[in-house]
Amino acid sequence: MSGRPNPHAAPLPEPSTVPENGWHCGHFFYRFRREAMAAPLSSECVSQFAAALAPSGDAAPERLASYWISGHGADFGIMVMDPDPAKVDAVHQSLVAPPLGQFVEAVWSFVSISEVSEYVPTIERFRDRLIAEGADPDSDELKAKVGAYERRLPMMNEQRLRPEFPEWPAACFYPMNKSRVPGANWFTEPFSSRNAMMAEHAQSGIAFAGKVSQLITVGVGLDDWEWMVTLWARNPDYLKDIVYKMRFDVASAKYAEFGPFYVGYRAAADEILDHCKVR
Amino acid sequence: MSGRPNPHAAPLPEPSTVPENGWHCGHFFYRFRREAMAAPLSSECVSQFAAALAPSGDAAPERLASYWISGHGADFGIMVMDPDPAKVDAVHQSLVAPPLGQFVEAVWSFVSISEVSEYVPTIERFRDRLIAEGADPDSDELKAKVGAYERRLPMMNEQRLRPEFPEWPAACFYPMNKSRVPGANWFTEPFSSRNAMMAEHAQSGIAFAGKVSQLITVGVGLDDWEWMVTLWARNPDYLKDIVYKMRFDVASAKYAEFGPFYVGYRAAADEILDHCKVR
Amino acid sequence: MSGRPNPHAAPLPEPSTVPENGWHCGHFFYRFRREAMAAPLSSECVSQFAAALAPSGDAAPERLASYWISGHGADFGIMVMDPDPAKVDAVHQSLVAPPLGQFVEAVWSFVSISEVSEYVPTIERFRDRLIAEGADPDSDELKAKVGAYERRLPMMNEQRLRPEFPEWPAACFYPMNKSRVPGANWFTEPFSSRNAMMAEHAQSGIAFAGKVSQLITVGVGLDDWEWMVTLWARNPDYLKDIVYKMRFDVASAKYAEFGPFYVGYRAAADEILDHCKVR
Amino acid sequence: MSGRPNPHAAPLPEPSTVPENGWHCGHFFYRFRREAMAAPLSSECVSQFAAALAPSGDAAPERLASYWISGHGADFGIMVMDPDPAKVDAVHQSLVAPPLGQFVEAVWSFVSISEVSEYVPTIERFRDRLIAEGADPDSDELKAKVGAYERRLPMMNEQRLRPEFPEWPAACFYPMNKSRVPGANWFTEPFSSRNAMMAEHAQSGIAFAGKVSQLITVGVGLDDWEWMVTLWARNPDYLKDIVYKMRFDVASAKYAEFGPFYVGYRAAADEILDHCKVR
Amino acid sequence: MSGRPNPHAAPLPEPSTVPENGWHCGHFFYRFRREAMAAPLSSECVSQFAAALAPSGDAAPERLASYWISGHGADFGIMVMDPDPAKVDAVHQSLVAPPLGQFVEAVWSFVSISEVSEYVPTIERFRDRLIAEGADPDSDELKAKVGAYERRLPMMNEQRLRPEFPEWPAACFYPMNKSRVPGANWFTEPFSSRNAMMAEHAQSGIAFAGKVSQLITVGVGLDDWEWMVTLWARNPDYLKDIVYKMRFDVASAKYAEFGPFYVGYRAAADEILDHCKVR
Repeated sequence: MSGRPNPHAAPLPEPSTVPENGWHCGHFFYRFRREAMAAPLSSECVSQFAAALAPSGDAAPERLASYWISGHGADFGIMVMDPDPAKVDAVHQSLVAPPLGQFVEAVWSFVSISEVSEYVPTIERFRDRLIAEGADPDSDELKAKVGAYERRLPMMNEQRLRPEFPEWPAACFYPMNKSRVPGANWFTEPFSSRNAMMAEHAQSGIAFAGKVSQLITVGVGLDDWEWMVTLWARNPDYLKDIVYKMRFDVASAKYAEFGPFYVGYRAAADEILDHCKVR
Repeated sequence: MSGRPNPHAAPLPEPSTVPENGWHCGHFFYRFRREAMAAPLSSECVSQFAAALAPSGDAAPERLASYWISGHGADFGIMVMDPDPAKVDAVHQSLVAPPLGQFVEAVWSFVSISEVSEYVPTIERFRDRLIAEGADPDSDELKAKVGAYERRLPMMNEQRLRPEFPEWPAACFYPMNKSRVPGANWFTEPFSSRNAMMAEHAQSGIAFAGKVSQLITVGVGLDDWEWMVTLWARNPDYLKDIVYKMRFDVASAKYAEFGPFYVGYRAAADEILDHCKVR
Repeated sequence: MSGRPNPHAAPLPEPSTVPENGWHCGHFFYRFRREAMAAPLSSECVSQFAAALAPSGDAAPERLASYWISGHGADFGIMVMDPDPAKVDAVHQSLVAPPLGQFVEAVWSFVSISEVSEYVPTIERFRDRLIAEGADPDSDELKAKVGAYERRLPMMNEQRLRPEFPEWPAACFYPMNKSRVPGANWFTEPFSSRNAMMAEHAQSGIAFAGKVSQLITVGVGLDDWEWMVTLWARNPDYLKDIVYKMRFDVASAKYAEFGPFYVGYRAAADEILDHCKVR
Repeated sequence: MSGRPNPHAAPLPEPSTVPENGWHCGHFFYRFRREAMAAPLSSECVSQFAAALAPSGDAAPERLASYWISGHGADFGIMVMDPDPAKVDAVHQSLVAPPLGQFVEAVWSFVSISEVSEYVPTIERFRDRLIAEGADPDSDELKAKVGAYERRLPMMNEQRLRPEFPEWPAACFYPMNKSRVPGANWFTEPFSSRNAMMAEHAQSGIAFAGKVSQLITVGVGLDDWEWMVTLWARNPDYLKDIVYKMRFDVASAKYAEFGPFYVGYRAAADEILDHCKVR
Repeated sequence: MSGRPNPHAAPLPEPSTVPENGWHCGHFFYRFRREAMAAPLSSECVSQFAAALAPSGDAAPERLASYWISGHGADFGIMVMDPDPAKVDAVHQSLVAPPLGQFVEAVWSFVSISEVSEYVPTIERFRDRLIAEGADPDSDELKAKVGAYERRLPMMNEQRLRPEFPEWPAACFYPMNKSRVPGANWFTEPFSSRNAMMAEHAQSGIAFAGKVSQLITVGVGLDDWEWMVTLWARNPDYLKDIVYKMRFDVASAKYAEFGPFYVGYRAAADEILDHCKVR
């Protein structure tokens, strides 16, 4: 591919690290380096920990949440979103800067960008689907449903691009790919087929409305997996239930490849330090 | 998926970390960091070790068992169950807190929740199966069998959700998935087919009644594998025998993917320290 | 599976860690932690090393052999067998106990139990096979061959369960599985087919009689691979030759999956230390 | 294969480490060893860092660019090109030489050589393709297009062999293979088929002209993957967009296997140190 | 398999670690442990390094060559051959013995034995192939070609078993397997088919006569891969070219599985230390 601009194309935007639509998103998971801790963290390290999870002023990203993580893989994790990738990464850098970095090791992370997926129906596609499902094209009912969708869509897309994080106590985080093996190649399926499978998949999620909230961010070209899934839940039981249910959707059963799962519980800096018995 | 509650649905439960039915379950495996041990553990560390394996008062989980582990992968392991995930994880945190954490490294763990699997027959399905196997629907024998199952089922489900741990000397622990590769995709099989395979699998287990006791907990959405298997045995020979026998069941032969196996022998804190020659 | 004893079954044996037939077997491989060795091992560590490889009295296992290992993966390895799993593991624990454990790291191990495989022909199956190969059922020759097998079998099985270790200089060690992928699933093959493949495989081995001696122990339910292969050879050339020849047997070509290979040379404690230049 | 020279062949060039056409290319990714940093880097280390990223005189390679890297996998990365492989590697060696090397760990790298791929159309093949697409072989238009390509080709090939690095702020780096699994074996496809797929793939890239610039270097025989992809972008959004779009090209969808992805932002030595909070 | 000697067979050779035909071969790759190097290597360590790469007297193996390695995976590598496996391994042990071993870590190695492959045509098979390719069985030309092969074969086999190492500046090293997956199982192919594929593969190599020299050693039964490939080249370009060309041979395209690649440049002890900036 050449880097030559096409003279007939629209003028190119200025070089920038800020995406046109979505936000940068960082998931970071850490363990305390117990092997180096003859004693609890010093008060200097405790202060650095608290400050890193509560950046202020220009350093404050648009979104930041922290969790203690269950199991040996990680002790805690954070999720950060902002238009500026340096601001997202800076929260991580604040946690591992000297001297606290001697005792905090990042064990996994995922770099992604939020977006409105190509499978989110446009208003026209939404209308076509209802008609395909039997709705009368001229009915008031159809008009009403389409109108409601039209009013809801901007808010739903805002939640996809610049989400509010729920205050629910449990969350799980995992990356995924769509498989490309012979016999189960998502990327050689036509759009119509992929779109139908994603619609079925979305139905599985709707059954958990109010119990689980989901965010999908994109790692394609940015990290080792194609997508990152964030699930926030009212109860950890629902995490198990929704992921199990969805595993039978064709989009998952046949095509999904999963990376590591981290399950966490919402916790502030001091709650993390107390749970981990390091102060 | 939207986080909007469905106005027609039952009111949602309050946010909580306690599952509605099962208990949280943690399996943790550790090695002593011999590379850092110029001398045996200090008496302070020995005390911390003993206290971590015998939490008391509010910190005491509903279930806790410890084992020394054979082979180089781990020196010892623990299995903990409780309704509160923080209480389960706290046993782990107590082992790796300063100063003992300098000498104890978690090498593997698994986070799961106990449940009654969808393949456990309801009373109606149990009756239907007997009839399908040739029982006379109106016979007293059928009635008696169904009645016995009806009386036994609550106790069996209690053992699945909130199990007593047997005092037998040997145990093995391993996680598993059901495969989703082209040609062997468990999740695209219909329920009837999966149910029949699981029934065959259960028959293999029944042959080991009194010799081996099994617990399956669910890691879907919580950890990197879908299920965690705990087998307790009267003799390590039976562990080898039952796992070998089950490997020929179609549910395993064709669909099972296995993670790491740990074999352990029931041991109290001081027995672990003595076996490992670290005090 | 329930833990309920079947009231009609034979009474169950007492809980025990001693297998009914075979012995516990441990293969352990180690490297010296050169990164921590500013100087050769202290005389205290040298003594601990020698004592660990020569346990005496109650601590002495039934079998123990040591080897220096070629290549960077390990510096030396040991193979231990005993009815008591704690006695097998104790040899390992003696090597990594303080203070020597600062300088000796276990890099791999395998936990298994010896057994007489289901593919070893019974006397009846041996006779049937000869007849199937054309022997006259009433001939004296058949009778003689069956009689000889009958006399030899107990000794052969003793070697399978409680083997003497040959004094030959070279050995290789590796674990294996039988594959369960679509198109090459060992565990969905009928016994007759598996048995025929194992008989072919045994023929390949017979060609190396006097050059190579083999022991297969079982890791199913105990460790991450299903079987552990130990090959002792008069000359390392034969290790390469037999493994290459056997790779063309269908049982291997189509179904075998191999783990790490370690090749070693019989050596006493002081020979290992000298070869590794650490004293 | 014999090392005998063919007496009828052209005389062989003198032994050399300088490729006949392309340049050596090194991609290196690093993390700061926070576990060893009780304090920020000393001024000696800061100076060594700055000097390593700005080699001068004979040590200066033809190309050198540096980036801070998003996520926990690496803190920063460099990309170096030169005819002399020792000069490329020396930049890396300068970063890890004592004393800075105590605090800088290389986590991944890729060794490759630039080349003009066999899929870049020669002038004749370019002409043939236009005719195959319907151009009149005798038209002035065809002649003009071929002439333009003929004038452009040397410059394009220069950019492939000895590229200028754009000043754009974002870049991503990842290695790839073409698959050789049954059912998707790139290397058993005829050249014509591979060439057509690569032409389709190139079209995907052209849509990003001015937004993304791409460099493909060859690791076959030099490193663990066959190719290394460098994408420079005006905005990180375009990295996600182009890689996602290309994933649907048959050359990628069916045949591509990807290694680790690193996304970075152009930064000088002091900007890296500041972003990473280590000085 | 039994260890019983067959009384009708030739008497068995004495136990030995020296192969009957080939030599033991060791490839070892190392990195300097920069994390432990606050300063350059002490003069004692520099002397140990030089001495390890120049063993003398009884310790001197038949062949020994050293290379600096490009990329972050290793800093340098050595290749050693000798009839005695302990002498090969001793070069490695000399590098990691105290005190130098604190600063030199072996990152990969491969243990193999040289041999004349079963695919090297005997004189008879060579003659048959020429006839199959159209040569007149009674022609003088055929006789001459066969005679030349007969004279050349001993020297070629000597180079396979006890090779001279070329002085060329570049080399690459990688292990490989032949695949055994369903649909591409090398080991279930008949010898004639494998032989034809290997002959095609050899033709690819002949095109690089004088540019690249190849050595294949066998790791079957000795290490984790079946074969080890050593390519020495006049120019690193040829390494890329020959491996790329060979990847299209059916023997590679369909059946080859590759391990890690290391590319190195011939260098004496002091050149390695200088290139790595550690003295």
